[in-house]
Amino acid sequence: MFSNENGVKKNSCVFGYKHALLHRHRHYEDENEWGCGSWLEYTLVVVLASILLLGSLGLTLFWVIQYQGGFAWREDPSKEFNLHPVLMVAGFITFSGFSILLYRICRCCRRIYVKLLHTVFHALAIPCVAVGFLAVLDSHNLKQPAIPNFYSLHSWIGLVTMGLFAIQFVVGFFSFLVLLCCEGATAGFRAALVPIHASFGLTTFMLAIAAAVTGLTEKVMFTLGNTYSEWPEQGIVVNALAMVLIALGILVSFAVRSPTLSADTKLLVTERL
Amino acid sequence: MFSNENGVKKNSCVFGYKHALLHRHRHYEDENEWGCGSWLEYTLVVVLASILLLGSLGLTLFWVIQYQGGFAWREDPSKEFNLHPVLMVAGFITFSGFSILLYRICRCCRRIYVKLLHTVFHALAIPCVAVGFLAVLDSHNLKQPAIPNFYSLHSWIGLVTMGLFAIQFVVGFFSFLVLLCCEGATAGFRAALVPIHASFGLTTFMLAIAAAVTGLTEKVMFTLGNTYSEWPEQGIVVNALAMVLIALGILVSFAVRSPTLSADTKLLVTERL
Repeated sequence: MFSNENGVKKNSCVFGYKHALLHRHRHYEDENEWGCGSWLEYTLVVVLASILLLGSLGLTLFWVIQYQGGFAWREDPSKEFNLHPVLMVAGFITFSGFSILLYRICRCCRRIYVKLLHTVFHALAIPCVAVGFLAVLDSHNLKQPAIPNFYSLHSWIGLVTMGLFAIQFVVGFFSFLVLLCCEGATAGFRAALVPIHASFGLTTFMLAIAAAVTGLTEKVMFTLGNTYSEWPEQGIVVNALAMVLIALGILVSFAVRSPTLSADTKLLVTERL
Repeated sequence: MFSNENGVKKNSCVFGYKHALLHRHRHYEDENEWGCGSWLEYTLVVVLASILLLGSLGLTLFWVIQYQGGFAWREDPSKEFNLHPVLMVAGFITFSGFSILLYRICRCCRRIYVKLLHTVFHALAIPCVAVGFLAVLDSHNLKQPAIPNFYSLHSWIGLVTMGLFAIQFVVGFFSFLVLLCCEGATAGFRAALVPIHASFGLTTFMLAIAAAVTGLTEKVMFTLGNTYSEWPEQGIVVNALAMVLIALGILVSFAVRSPTLSADTKLLVTERL
């Protein structure tokens, strides 16, 4: 699994190797060292993840428009609510998912561009999450009688997810972009933060999925009640949407941890056999 | 992060180092190289994880006994159902969680004993999951009128979780224990399988949490209905249980990925800074 990096011989020592890895730019000839299996795995993950990430958003839109009456703003609180699932899936799943994946498996661009794209995709998620959050609060408060907020476990999980997302964004932005202004002095700190940021990033994505599936369970039970068990069309659509989200959870965590998929992991973690 | 292993000098090459890591036994003097911060982090994770793993089971028992009438077998289907959440949490969360954690961060035993303990803990989860699954099927079928099975997204997520758990157990058992009989010939295959097994293991644990929180949402809405929004005691207990499960998801995925916590990760993954 060790590739011939620029200026690093195979018999150089661990410390020189690691040092060189930290300070090098990627070179396109690296790609040639990938075997056919790795390329197949890479293409399969990219294609499947794109289909599922866009599919989850498409399926949410289809469910909301087809079975829940579409969208409105404050003039119709029930339809205003419908903005909530669509915007939350767009922000927490589609944008965040693409952001995680492209950061991890983008093999064609320089590091700083990938970092900026990673930030932009996550930044795009922010207005979605903010408006999605306001939409549900608004629709609850405007209903006659008003629906209480923050009592259900879906809302508690959602709040934890939003909190972790915000911390990740702020810490990531300052640590990996702003601190670049004094690159040398902060390299050690940034290196130590990378596995923590990566671990909590994936955890936030999994929490978003947990929040989504509890929200879907709540909504489908409020809407369908006992008829849910009679396999109505809407129930199947919501279940299918949940399964797409679960498949995404499996695929993204596999892609993030797979040593063969990453463009940057040249030293394998030695784990117990 | 590179320790002075037995027979491996700091200036030895990457390949010799990796080779030595694969074939050595752990030595207790390794422990001395851990700093105070690492020990603090380690102790904190072990204590907190133990509290949360036992706490989730304790809270489930408390909820079921205090608010759902306790247990019975086929003579009372409603109480037979109560075996389902308790046994599923015991199997998928408590036993599996301890198994993952002890494998990853056990620093005091030889590899083969840790492997066997990892297998035993997962094996203990199997009867829990099997009886928990039978209990819910039985209680649904015996009710008058019978409750249909496998219509809800909780049941779909649960089935996926059980499937992944079974695959993980069978593949893990054969690959990492049975194939040890021809140790040399299978080392490469086993090494390649380690990150996949670890990745899917953590994913199965996260799926179990997703299944649990959707199940709790379903049950609390069936039981409490609209009174859920009035902050009844039972609603708060169920929400608290869900938050313990979410905290476990965050803690376990952090512990598994943290390079400082692992007893075995001597080569750090070099990720983008």
